[in-house]
Amino acid sequence: MHHGIGFIQDLAVVMALAGVVTVLFHRLKQPVVLGYIAAGVIIGPYTPPFQLIHDEQTIQTLGELGVVFLMFSLGLEFSLRKVFKVGATAIVAALSEIVLMLWIGYEIGSALGWSPMDSLFLGAILAISSTTIIVKALSDLGLKRESFAQLVFGILIVEDILGIAMLVLLAGIAQTGQLSAGLAAVTLGKLLLFMTVSLLVGVLLVPRALNYVARTGSDEMMLVSVLGFCFGFCLLVLKLDYSVALGAFLIGAIMAESRHLHRIEHLIAPLRDAFSAIFFVTIGLMLNPAVMLDYGWPIAVITLAVIVGKIVSCGLGTFLSGQDAGTSMRVGMTVSQIGEFSFIIATLGVTLKVTSGFLYPIAVAVSALTTLTTPYLIRVADPLTRRIAHAMPATLSNVFGMYGQWLRGLTTARSEPTLISMTRRIVLQIALNLALVAAIFLAVSYSAPHSGRLLSHWLDDEPLQRVVQWSVALVVSLPFLVAVYRKTKSLALLFAELSVQGATAGRLTSALRHAIAELLPIVSMIGVFLLVAALSGSILPPTGLLVAVLTCAALLLALVWRWCVKIHASMQIALRETFEEQPDP
Amino acid sequence: MHHGIGFIQDLAVVMALAGVVTVLFHRLKQPVVLGYIAAGVIIGPYTPPFQLIHDEQTIQTLGELGVVFLMFSLGLEFSLRKVFKVGATAIVAALSEIVLMLWIGYEIGSALGWSPMDSLFLGAILAISSTTIIVKALSDLGLKRESFAQLVFGILIVEDILGIAMLVLLAGIAQTGQLSAGLAAVTLGKLLLFMTVSLLVGVLLVPRALNYVARTGSDEMMLVSVLGFCFGFCLLVLKLDYSVALGAFLIGAIMAESRHLHRIEHLIAPLRDAFSAIFFVTIGLMLNPAVMLDYGWPIAVITLAVIVGKIVSCGLGTFLSGQDAGTSMRVGMTVSQIGEFSFIIATLGVTLKVTSGFLYPIAVAVSALTTLTTPYLIRVADPLTRRIAHAMPATLSNVFGMYGQWLRGLTTARSEPTLISMTRRIVLQIALNLALVAAIFLAVSYSAPHSGRLLSHWLDDEPLQRVVQWSVALVVSLPFLVAVYRKTKSLALLFAELSVQGATAGRLTSALRHAIAELLPIVSMIGVFLLVAALSGSILPPTGLLVAVLTCAALLLALVWRWCVKIHASMQIALRETFEEQPDP
Repeated sequence: MHHGIGFIQDLAVVMALAGVVTVLFHRLKQPVVLGYIAAGVIIGPYTPPFQLIHDEQTIQTLGELGVVFLMFSLGLEFSLRKVFKVGATAIVAALSEIVLMLWIGYEIGSALGWSPMDSLFLGAILAISSTTIIVKALSDLGLKRESFAQLVFGILIVEDILGIAMLVLLAGIAQTGQLSAGLAAVTLGKLLLFMTVSLLVGVLLVPRALNYVARTGSDEMMLVSVLGFCFGFCLLVLKLDYSVALGAFLIGAIMAESRHLHRIEHLIAPLRDAFSAIFFVTIGLMLNPAVMLDYGWPIAVITLAVIVGKIVSCGLGTFLSGQDAGTSMRVGMTVSQIGEFSFIIATLGVTLKVTSGFLYPIAVAVSALTTLTTPYLIRVADPLTRRIAHAMPATLSNVFGMYGQWLRGLTTARSEPTLISMTRRIVLQIALNLALVAAIFLAVSYSAPHSGRLLSHWLDDEPLQRVVQWSVALVVSLPFLVAVYRKTKSLALLFAELSVQGATAGRLTSALRHAIAELLPIVSMIGVFLLVAALSGSILPPTGLLVAVLTCAALLLALVWRWCVKIHASMQIALRETFEEQPDP
Repeated sequence: MHHGIGFIQDLAVVMALAGVVTVLFHRLKQPVVLGYIAAGVIIGPYTPPFQLIHDEQTIQTLGELGVVFLMFSLGLEFSLRKVFKVGATAIVAALSEIVLMLWIGYEIGSALGWSPMDSLFLGAILAISSTTIIVKALSDLGLKRESFAQLVFGILIVEDILGIAMLVLLAGIAQTGQLSAGLAAVTLGKLLLFMTVSLLVGVLLVPRALNYVARTGSDEMMLVSVLGFCFGFCLLVLKLDYSVALGAFLIGAIMAESRHLHRIEHLIAPLRDAFSAIFFVTIGLMLNPAVMLDYGWPIAVITLAVIVGKIVSCGLGTFLSGQDAGTSMRVGMTVSQIGEFSFIIATLGVTLKVTSGFLYPIAVAVSALTTLTTPYLIRVADPLTRRIAHAMPATLSNVFGMYGQWLRGLTTARSEPTLISMTRRIVLQIALNLALVAAIFLAVSYSAPHSGRLLSHWLDDEPLQRVVQWSVALVVSLPFLVAVYRKTKSLALLFAELSVQGATAGRLTSALRHAIAELLPIVSMIGVFLLVAALSGSILPPTGLLVAVLTCAALLLALVWRWCVKIHASMQIALRETFEEQPDP
């Protein structure tokens, strides 16, 4: 009981103060986030009057729930189509921001005389902007639906993905002292595979399940189911060593395709508002004003570097990828802060014992300061752009104008004929099906130790266990393998038509075309087999047994070919239906 | 970080399983509460497959949040008018239930050869029904707005109040070994005073504050303010050593008078649903099937005793206070379980080290079993009543019918003339104002050590500090004292008119009337002064200073009399307005 009462007291202090502060800051026309952080500092352990929080750990934990709900809500407002639209810009801007900030951070650290590891971690801490703070600031300012905000969300998604990769890489560097390009590629590849497959499978299953629940008409059941999916998926994501934030975001993006999107948003909003308030209070809790004074100069320098560096790097990236100057400036100013990701990276350094003790408080202080400045910077972006445009020499502004024109010219020139767009579509479908096949074999490999233990009750022989495991993976992936084969075949036909022109090949035209159309799919399927064999290394049966399995599979395939085609087609239709369905008002 | 991830994992397991279970039990047409409890048993530490929860304490804590939100929602659906309507019945039924169950519990404990303290605690554990389980069962069955449900809620409120008193008394008995009637009276009196004053002050302040917040139009701000009030009030209640459940319920009842009631209900519902699911899962978590087998017989006997005992005692109490047989049966069957209050009492026994170790698991097991039976009992109440009515001998059913008629006759006979109802109203107003005065003096006394420390910077002399403290209390309570004086005067006038009839007193009529009308208020005010002096014992200045203070107060009163009357009138009007206002649709 006592633990509980202490906790309720803590929560009472946090919520009561948050309640006062939200009204006060609204009255003062200041962003409420700042109010929450200020409330956190007041009740925090470092400021008088006295220690108001007994069990800071539990409040921190509730704050993490805030991150889950914030990311989930962000996912709900996410649409795959929108992201494809801003894709190129987002990647260019995010990459330019991360690379430049990594470099700036490292240089600042070195200039301050810190160790190379501290400097590297400082770079990583400065690289990623804060999704939660940006979402909050934009929705406070009522700008969340503007087109530049969509661009920012795209950049943040790319950043989060790159940030997760960076976390894995940093852990590797900290432990081995060097960076391996191969590891980086594998990390990114796995992440991409995971996201693609989750989205595909999720969009196929989750909206359908929610339709079933929605028919009961009970809000409670709907909410508990949504939370069940949300936390259940987060659990899966955690087991794969990714962050909860990624999981919450992905499952949100999946549910964004549900017909009941607006009802879900409605049910989740109170949870998000309550717990994000707690999250922002916890940021304030961590802020020690004394450390800010001790490390005043480094904090000031780093804060300035974050603001200027991010505006320049991200703004420039956005501009270079073809946005106008105003939008680029707004994007740059919106992302000019660091937040939760920086804390995670700083925590990693502390956990691995490779960074110095001052790095964490500095990260929090810089995050708090840049959070303070973010809403003001977003507000001044437009006036500032206008003033710069006025003050700029005519030749320079002409150059900028010409760059934009040239880029737009490129884009128009690239407008594609139907044939290429058809090819692209087939390639995309092949890639998606291959991703599913890869995911199935990886998942079976991943669970092999566990399923092996279960199988050992019936099968003592280890190679035979592998045969069973590999066969299961093969059978499950049959529909997708069939689809890959069929799509490759149409691609080969298309390719044969295009590459072998009647004028040059003469009488051989038809034979050559036939050869290409027949050979290419077979060659591809051999490639697919090699890929699958590589991915399923740990469960690949010995060669003799493998041949037997493949022969059986071929026989089975002859029997179920039609069924495979049918099931794949219905999945495809179901997926398209879900994507095309508009949410209920 | 690690704590957080473990916690998110736990929450993920709980929510994912709750999501599956809620759909499954809805499919099976069973109450969802049972599903949540079953989910708790599955993931609990006592059942295979393995330990799924890492940090049970944190999940328990979230479950307590569920109690807060459940009680708050219950408060929101509470209306003071409704309770006044079911008041007498609720008190009779609750008292008859508590007294009978205390006795049954004690007798069972003695029969099982337990120690007197174990037996007494068993009685207390069985005495109070579970508000949360009843609310859940009734809303699952769609019966929450039926008239018998209103009666049940009235009984539960009375039970909760008596339960809180019982907790304090039990602690006293456990420590001293005896029961003092004086202590019991003081405990109950303080509780009544606290509730009255909280409701009065709360209804005056909170709905107005919420109107201000509502004007911003932001749901987030509204929610955070509501939560701020809710937890802030819970904090106050905790400081006064009452339970969070009482606090949440009271602040809910206060907000029920707000114009924005429906908006608040809408915002709170998702929080309530999510956390009450966790709360019910935590009940399952505590359930050890092995203990249920070890203590199978006692648990079976006690479970039967709870069900039969509560149906008989509470049903009889309801019937005796004038409800018909069907309603009485439904009420009795609805309250036939034990729940969260029993756990609190069992925990008290463990904390004070006066009860044996088996009492807590038995309480949980009986609670789980009776929770299982509650929805079925509610459902069979009506058919059972009909069957009993059929089977009953005609003479017996005649006697029952006559009792009802006789009681209804009494009620009709009691319909009052206007004069008495006017007197009653004035007495009520005097009582409420006196309650406020008492609360002000008690609050100042309570905070005296703290304010004394602050005052000691300027005033070294302890008696002078008391003068300041007592004067502050006096000045704050002036408007209410003036109101008490004026109401007493009108009461005295009324009394003079009635008691001194012109026929008997003759020529002295007018003089006597005048004397009564003048003397009575003065005598009463002396009584009020003695009451105040008794309540503020610790801050009452020494006699010499007290006389000086009272003289100053009399002078001040002459100056601000009009202002006091005006401020009291406007408070009264504000209160009446709030009560009479209908919530926005």
